[in-house]
Amino acid sequence: MDMKTYVTEKASQAREGARALARALSGRKNDTLLDMARSLKKRSKELLAENKKDVYAAKEKGLSKALVDRLTLNEKRIDEMAKGLEEVAALPDPVGQITGMWRRPNGMSVGRMRVPIGVIGIIYESRPNVTADAAGLCLKAGNAVILRGGSEALHSNMAIVRVLRDSLKQNALHEGAITFIDTPDRGAIMEMLKLEGLIDLVIPRGGEALIRTVTENSRIPVLKHYKGVCHVFVDRDADLIMAEEICFNAKVQRPGTCNAMETMLVDEAVAEGFLPSMLKRFENAGVALRGCPKTLSLYPHITEVKEEDYYREYLDLILNVKVVGDVDEAIAHIAKYGSAHSDAIVTMNHERAMRFLREVDSSAVFVNASTRLNDGFQFGLGAEIGISTDKIHARGPMGLEELTCEKFIVLGDGQLRE
Amino acid sequence: MDMKTYVTEKASQAREGARALARALSGRKNDTLLDMARSLKKRSKELLAENKKDVYAAKEKGLSKALVDRLTLNEKRIDEMAKGLEEVAALPDPVGQITGMWRRPNGMSVGRMRVPIGVIGIIYESRPNVTADAAGLCLKAGNAVILRGGSEALHSNMAIVRVLRDSLKQNALHEGAITFIDTPDRGAIMEMLKLEGLIDLVIPRGGEALIRTVTENSRIPVLKHYKGVCHVFVDRDADLIMAEEICFNAKVQRPGTCNAMETMLVDEAVAEGFLPSMLKRFENAGVALRGCPKTLSLYPHITEVKEEDYYREYLDLILNVKVVGDVDEAIAHIAKYGSAHSDAIVTMNHERAMRFLREVDSSAVFVNASTRLNDGFQFGLGAEIGISTDKIHARGPMGLEELTCEKFIVLGDGQLRE
Repeated sequence: MDMKTYVTEKASQAREGARALARALSGRKNDTLLDMARSLKKRSKELLAENKKDVYAAKEKGLSKALVDRLTLNEKRIDEMAKGLEEVAALPDPVGQITGMWRRPNGMSVGRMRVPIGVIGIIYESRPNVTADAAGLCLKAGNAVILRGGSEALHSNMAIVRVLRDSLKQNALHEGAITFIDTPDRGAIMEMLKLEGLIDLVIPRGGEALIRTVTENSRIPVLKHYKGVCHVFVDRDADLIMAEEICFNAKVQRPGTCNAMETMLVDEAVAEGFLPSMLKRFENAGVALRGCPKTLSLYPHITEVKEEDYYREYLDLILNVKVVGDVDEAIAHIAKYGSAHSDAIVTMNHERAMRFLREVDSSAVFVNASTRLNDGFQFGLGAEIGISTDKIHARGPMGLEELTCEKFIVLGDGQLRE
Repeated sequence: MDMKTYVTEKASQAREGARALARALSGRKNDTLLDMARSLKKRSKELLAENKKDVYAAKEKGLSKALVDRLTLNEKRIDEMAKGLEEVAALPDPVGQITGMWRRPNGMSVGRMRVPIGVIGIIYESRPNVTADAAGLCLKAGNAVILRGGSEALHSNMAIVRVLRDSLKQNALHEGAITFIDTPDRGAIMEMLKLEGLIDLVIPRGGEALIRTVTENSRIPVLKHYKGVCHVFVDRDADLIMAEEICFNAKVQRPGTCNAMETMLVDEAVAEGFLPSMLKRFENAGVALRGCPKTLSLYPHITEVKEEDYYREYLDLILNVKVVGDVDEAIAHIAKYGSAHSDAIVTMNHERAMRFLREVDSSAVFVNASTRLNDGFQFGLGAEIGISTDKIHARGPMGLEELTCEKFIVLGDGQLRE
């Protein structure tokens, strides 16, 4: 069977699964999610044995320690996958929710009803927990999922999918609802991206190269974020103690995440009072600093920042520091170098806080809080399937609601078009 | 200058226009729209003179009478364009609207704020009024627009754009906010579709061929509808007088529109009582009928429908008629042959009405009302830029809200990620 036929066949199964799942009641979906959680824990030996094959092959191939770690399953990580599914089961079901209804002069009622999107393709890299997380969220929102994980995690992903599909069968849900592309051939991705009649949305999760490949080749709508080049701006009217805590948290608490700060912008009116102690604290925490000329004049021994550094997502303990003239220069810097992900201002000045909030065009804009809080759980949305920096359909953390769309419903008693 | 440089230059102007426009207050945007409306009327002679060139060339080229009619401007059509802009000015401004705000356990407030999408590309065919309609809606929603109209309307479109841009200048708004691709070369479209960093959304308006070309070649998200294959299902518990009025309206009131009925489905329990008089009324109105075998047994002299007819959007006085066993068969028929546009059930049975409403996966689903009512004005959204049959971002009529997106805003007092 050629790749096109194979992938089309898989996507058709998912489409059938989607039709059945769109009608499933919340109770059945929740029972299934809880059953999946139980089964993952009960069958952990089977999962660990399959995972060992992937880990062994990865080490043989000489993959980095970090990659091997991301690939590795253990009892604790299996418990976390199970817990994730239980949490999704506890969230309210968005499907069928009527988000508004109004009456028109001719007497008909017009409203919007949340419905599943249909079939969602998830293309991801090595972490096997994405298999369970993504399948759980899509299931709860009434969508079938077609999963294409990294080839290095193939055995682990297949084992997880086997457990999840057994739960679907057990609960009389269509197995096509969780469909897995079980070939390591990358051609499968290209074929998936052409199936705009069978797949409704593609979400790539992984490095920038994967995301670019998907975006450039897809005929299907894509939701993604390329990178997080996030800023904190310390305004002249900032509480400098609060500013130091927010900047330190945004950079150091978990530097490898997309919502960590990459560039700190400081109003020149407070640079002298703020920078020396702040930068010392960063250095004590092991942060490598790159400063603009004005920063260097106050804190001389660090490296000078180059313009291209302002575009970089370090995902590491490295920080650009720039002194700016005012909030306008800060906003202009973010517009030019930022990635529309997460940006914050620290200030006690109401007018500048509101200007920053309105004018900075990012998925989440913060006043007096850390950019690290851009997260579905922190925002109270429940679990998330990723953070979108797109401007279509969803911006910021994508939870269950973002995995649905709204159709119009009309209740009439004989209304006609005049 | 090569095409790529030319289009990139244009899109960069639009991007600059978008940045400026995102901050414009409603008052200024409304004043500009009203000024545009006045100027279009005041400068109608200039518009008509330019339009004459297009109309002359179209006749020379032997374009069909219908196409020449769509292309032609007159005082009445210019007044309608102006009226459209006045109506947009009167609509509430979606930009800056906070659609929800809630407090988290750590004390921070999290909310969603509507913001413009940015730069919207509109690719359309011959009707010159789209130029003013699309520019007006995009402007009100704070978006810059980059317009690419049909080559046969080039002079008319350029004249309209000149008037609109003069109003922008007059009101101190950035002229890039309305950017026009003034070359008839189709290569310009291909270059536009690659500019994913400069254009945020593309909306094609025109025939299926244009829309397919755009979708297959775009790296930018696209909102569209291919076609409207719409159904009315007459249930066994329908009020047959109401059913006849709704079906007649859905087919005959304006058959050339996307929300007109193409296939009428009738429950076999009422087929004998309903069909003969209904079909006679259709024939008297000049509708050519294509019936399934059961329909033919009740009304023998009409053509037999072929399976491929069920997929067709006639946009004409032609109708497929099919007798089905029950609501399940009707829903299955719509899922298979429909285009997810507008579908209706006529029934007095509450349970089947609710099942149809939930299970039919179309942009608008109607109970006891005509599919012809799927329209932004009819639904109370104000003007619309088109009807989406996509499932991402917007389904159904796209008004001002659909030309915005929502970003997250967070108001804190020092919150950190633990």
